[in-house]
Amino acid sequence: MYELGIVKRHIRRADRAVVDRLAGFGVATVHEAMGRVGLMQPVMRPIYPGAKACGTAVTVLLQPGDNWMLHVAAEQLQSGDVVVAACTAENTDGFFGDLLATSFRARGAMGLVIDGGVRDVRDLAEMKFPVWSRAISAKGTVKATLGSVNVPVVCAGALVHPGDVVLADDDGVVVVPADIAAKTADAAAAREANEADKRAKLAAGMLGLDMYKMREPLEKAGLRYVD
Amino acid sequence: MYELGIVKRHIRRADRAVVDRLAGFGVATVHEAMGRVGLMQPVMRPIYPGAKACGTAVTVLLQPGDNWMLHVAAEQLQSGDVVVAACTAENTDGFFGDLLATSFRARGAMGLVIDGGVRDVRDLAEMKFPVWSRAISAKGTVKATLGSVNVPVVCAGALVHPGDVVLADDDGVVVVPADIAAKTADAAAAREANEADKRAKLAAGMLGLDMYKMREPLEKAGLRYVD
Amino acid sequence: MYELGIVKRHIRRADRAVVDRLAGFGVATVHEAMGRVGLMQPVMRPIYPGAKACGTAVTVLLQPGDNWMLHVAAEQLQSGDVVVAACTAENTDGFFGDLLATSFRARGAMGLVIDGGVRDVRDLAEMKFPVWSRAISAKGTVKATLGSVNVPVVCAGALVHPGDVVLADDDGVVVVPADIAAKTADAAAAREANEADKRAKLAAGMLGLDMYKMREPLEKAGLRYVD
Amino acid sequence: MYELGIVKRHIRRADRAVVDRLAGFGVATVHEAMGRVGLMQPVMRPIYPGAKACGTAVTVLLQPGDNWMLHVAAEQLQSGDVVVAACTAENTDGFFGDLLATSFRARGAMGLVIDGGVRDVRDLAEMKFPVWSRAISAKGTVKATLGSVNVPVVCAGALVHPGDVVLADDDGVVVVPADIAAKTADAAAAREANEADKRAKLAAGMLGLDMYKMREPLEKAGLRYVD
Amino acid sequence: MYELGIVKRHIRRADRAVVDRLAGFGVATVHEAMGRVGLMQPVMRPIYPGAKACGTAVTVLLQPGDNWMLHVAAEQLQSGDVVVAACTAENTDGFFGDLLATSFRARGAMGLVIDGGVRDVRDLAEMKFPVWSRAISAKGTVKATLGSVNVPVVCAGALVHPGDVVLADDDGVVVVPADIAAKTADAAAAREANEADKRAKLAAGMLGLDMYKMREPLEKAGLRYVD
Amino acid sequence: MYELGIVKRHIRRADRAVVDRLAGFGVATVHEAMGRVGLMQPVMRPIYPGAKACGTAVTVLLQPGDNWMLHVAAEQLQSGDVVVAACTAENTDGFFGDLLATSFRARGAMGLVIDGGVRDVRDLAEMKFPVWSRAISAKGTVKATLGSVNVPVVCAGALVHPGDVVLADDDGVVVVPADIAAKTADAAAAREANEADKRAKLAAGMLGLDMYKMREPLEKAGLRYVD
Repeated sequence: MYELGIVKRHIRRADRAVVDRLAGFGVATVHEAMGRVGLMQPVMRPIYPGAKACGTAVTVLLQPGDNWMLHVAAEQLQSGDVVVAACTAENTDGFFGDLLATSFRARGAMGLVIDGGVRDVRDLAEMKFPVWSRAISAKGTVKATLGSVNVPVVCAGALVHPGDVVLADDDGVVVVPADIAAKTADAAAAREANEADKRAKLAAGMLGLDMYKMREPLEKAGLRYVD
Repeated sequence: MYELGIVKRHIRRADRAVVDRLAGFGVATVHEAMGRVGLMQPVMRPIYPGAKACGTAVTVLLQPGDNWMLHVAAEQLQSGDVVVAACTAENTDGFFGDLLATSFRARGAMGLVIDGGVRDVRDLAEMKFPVWSRAISAKGTVKATLGSVNVPVVCAGALVHPGDVVLADDDGVVVVPADIAAKTADAAAAREANEADKRAKLAAGMLGLDMYKMREPLEKAGLRYVD
Repeated sequence: MYELGIVKRHIRRADRAVVDRLAGFGVATVHEAMGRVGLMQPVMRPIYPGAKACGTAVTVLLQPGDNWMLHVAAEQLQSGDVVVAACTAENTDGFFGDLLATSFRARGAMGLVIDGGVRDVRDLAEMKFPVWSRAISAKGTVKATLGSVNVPVVCAGALVHPGDVVLADDDGVVVVPADIAAKTADAAAAREANEADKRAKLAAGMLGLDMYKMREPLEKAGLRYVD
Repeated sequence: MYELGIVKRHIRRADRAVVDRLAGFGVATVHEAMGRVGLMQPVMRPIYPGAKACGTAVTVLLQPGDNWMLHVAAEQLQSGDVVVAACTAENTDGFFGDLLATSFRARGAMGLVIDGGVRDVRDLAEMKFPVWSRAISAKGTVKATLGSVNVPVVCAGALVHPGDVVLADDDGVVVVPADIAAKTADAAAAREANEADKRAKLAAGMLGLDMYKMREPLEKAGLRYVD
Repeated sequence: MYELGIVKRHIRRADRAVVDRLAGFGVATVHEAMGRVGLMQPVMRPIYPGAKACGTAVTVLLQPGDNWMLHVAAEQLQSGDVVVAACTAENTDGFFGDLLATSFRARGAMGLVIDGGVRDVRDLAEMKFPVWSRAISAKGTVKATLGSVNVPVVCAGALVHPGDVVLADDDGVVVVPADIAAKTADAAAAREANEADKRAKLAAGMLGLDMYKMREPLEKAGLRYVD
Repeated sequence: MYELGIVKRHIRRADRAVVDRLAGFGVATVHEAMGRVGLMQPVMRPIYPGAKACGTAVTVLLQPGDNWMLHVAAEQLQSGDVVVAACTAENTDGFFGDLLATSFRARGAMGLVIDGGVRDVRDLAEMKFPVWSRAISAKGTVKATLGSVNVPVVCAGALVHPGDVVLADDDGVVVVPADIAAKTADAAAAREANEADKRAKLAAGMLGLDMYKMREPLEKAGLRYVD
């Protein structure tokens, strides 16, 4: 894990049909469906409002100030992939811009999640190429030191294996391991079915206190109402 | 103060007419009208551009990772309230989403100010439910530990008593204690009357140096012009 | 350098024709054209998407919580200037709002870059007065302590001399020293000419690995492809 | 509250005997005894290991970059006071150094808690004058703008009224409101009596799981042991 | 991975003899010996200078503000373990103090690495119980929500499996996967053997430029010496 | 300025006798003597308490994650120099450890100021080699990309020219331009002579209010004493 200087060519991607089902949910729903795990840290923000992406992870391990491995990753892309780039150190340099986005899109990528900085964000927004990043920075990078492609990486606090499903929207980024992707999609669907009814009740003025039957546990916990 | 496990049912809200007057001003103007106090820290940002809210505070003290008390607070809401949620520790979890927003709105809330995270921000923006928060995060929370409702709280560095006026816009959040709300509205009105004239003079090219008569005090302070 | 209490009246501004040429490029391109130097730190963000400014620097050195010198700076402005305000300490107070923007614009300013906070951002966005800042804050400032105008300053990590070219867009802020502005504009033009061709090749599916002839250096560096 | 330009001369200090009792406990114990409230944020750190102070609060509200009010506060000090200085904005300037420490000590102060920076820390450590601060910085401050003395302040997230008990050690700073100081000292004593016995049991190898009878609630919560 | 509500009882610990060999090296050396990977982020600092620990990881996944699982973990400890505690959200609460340290030591623990806060740090330093943490905070925690014990966790950016070797000193924390521990110890020994000779040469005034034969690659890279 | 790939061999160092005079003062005193300018940001901390250094700057511009230029700098050192290393991006990697310290000391260096990370801090403390840094990190760096040596750099917010005097102690780091070093030493001496008398008066209970004649300006500013 984390070995430097490696490109893994053959990875097992999560099933396309399952990816497509997960694409229909929001990040918060899928995170809940997984049992409240799998999120990246909230420092990861979309570069434009309304950005959304769902795909299979091609992972990249970058060195600070060096985007060489993003070019290596481009060759490994298949249609429907999302590139997930971690870095061996916290670094906000602009590893990625509109040229790489053009290349990634031509190779089939649905978007980029990068624990670093990006640039040309105006162009990226116009291209509708969605990116989630730690920072926006025009700072250029070099191509001098090896990292890896398609090794497991820790990106913004989340472990990502190549082929995992990565879902990202305005709320952040969630990673669904390939082998629980189908189960998670089922749970997300169940959860969402549930929500429409709840929403209607709450809109009608019903209290969560009653809908979720919280009054008794609150009393047991010692909640006191005073005037 | 800060006692845990308490819900205060009857609070003295600032006068509605005064709240409506304050709603007509910007946060910066009201902060100045109070004598340059009352602001929350600038980490508190609206979840969409143009968000604006003004109302009477229903306060909540949360525990990290736990949104139980937001449900308790819903029952205490009256039309025209703004929920102000502090937390016993710095925490960016997603305490609040579209279901709670639906409930809060149904109970009369004008918006939420939370020293924590929120999720479902796309839905919240579409609902035009304004929220100011420290973070956006899909991270789910539990309902296990008591906090309080309608106790005085420190939210993002500002002391808020239940019933105080809370005004929030793109510039941030200001808290006006209920008993100086009327006086503050008067001062804000006076200040704003003043501004139109100043703006016209500055637009015509007059310098602040002359308009504010700064040249003499600058000279006394020792300012030197060199070539 | 950094002396307090000084206003330099006569500064050598970069040539207007060169400024206009640089205005046609993006920040990332100009930063690359300078040899990957000259950027401010990425904490400097535009207050609205799509903000863009290019002009000659009138520099200001502020004291924390004090905007007196911005008024002094207004008098030194010429058409086509960008105000660059540094501060003797990290401070997010709202040094600048719509009144000062009205004055700056009337005096010819193209925008503001400030290592501090700004307020009235809604009004500034409506005025289309572009600002790059460390923070948005309604916090008022005093007019009590001297700083300087048109001395060299360090703003968000970048050294800025009065008269330098300052270019800012969604990617951040770059500073081009006046005496290399022409050379930099040439290099930027060369770089951009180059980019259209690269973009077309990448869009057609060509890999950066081949276009930039990276395969051999990657192999020499020891990159291993595994299955 | 927070009014600027005020010095309150007569404040009600917590009872000396109670302060002395509280001085015998650690910050963590007193925080627990208050029901897990009253702490300042952990950014407040002592300037040397082993610093400890307990006394009655004389509060100061500072402006960023301005230490004028610390001089005003010196006159209000009585033997056994701890100065608690908040600031109207986040600011790390060196508001306090060895000269002010000499003055504060001569007037009876036991230490300083400041949501800002301090300097001369080597001298302060040699004088054994304990300080808890957000930062260490040599940056000088001016004496130009009014704040207040002995008004309620929010310091590092905690509300402090003049006369409250302030206890600080290597774990941080806790504020005990004057009117619950005696009750809190009792609760702290009860808690500590309890701890010696617990410590002995744990040292002998007993598990908290058994000592605190956690096995049943863990099982109820659904904890699963797997091989 | 990351599943909540699980305690794994039987884990495969790295070989004791290898752990003991690794304990003889510094964190920087072992990190280099692994190929420059395996470090936690530098926010993890020892609570006292000179702290050092090396052992096999018992991992804990905590919820913010909740230390219940540390008690569960105590039962799983064996002599020579180091507890590694991650949290589902960034949180600085004081999850750990002298009572838990007493228990952990009695059960054989060599230290604690926690992506959160600790308290009673004076006592811990006197006990010589080494802890590396994100923060020091007196803030108390509850025992209400399940996390997990001995599941793989991401702690301060590093992936840790139960049984991995954890080495920590003044430079930070490194994680050595159990199955490469022996190989890593060999590489660290080779590296260290090498260093004594280098140190002697450098102390005698030899330049790294010559010792590492850097002059030619620097020239090739284009380095220019000017007067 | 900031040009990459340059080593300037001949620099004009501040006069040795003046450097020695400045070495007798603290950072805070020298910063005041310069007119309250010249400080690096307070993020720069010594790696051990009591560290002190004063010397002439040999400057280095590093790339993130790359310490090649520190080796290049070693050759340019003369007895009495302090190395000042800036970085083109914020980066906390461990650029410097005990081997480089051995080399730097052998070449005459008095210490290091680095806007980045260092490692082997235990060894450095034992060697009494003083370092001020942004972080402590075991993270290794590569030797692949050119920066510069002895160009002007911005380090932690301060502009440093090669040959400037750099003074660092527990309060932080101050930079004195070579051409005002003598004048600054005079001003520092005058300031310090002054301080002994002030300290004695304050120790005797005299108030700063009276010693600095602040009562009248405070009254003019509108300070109100209330009961």
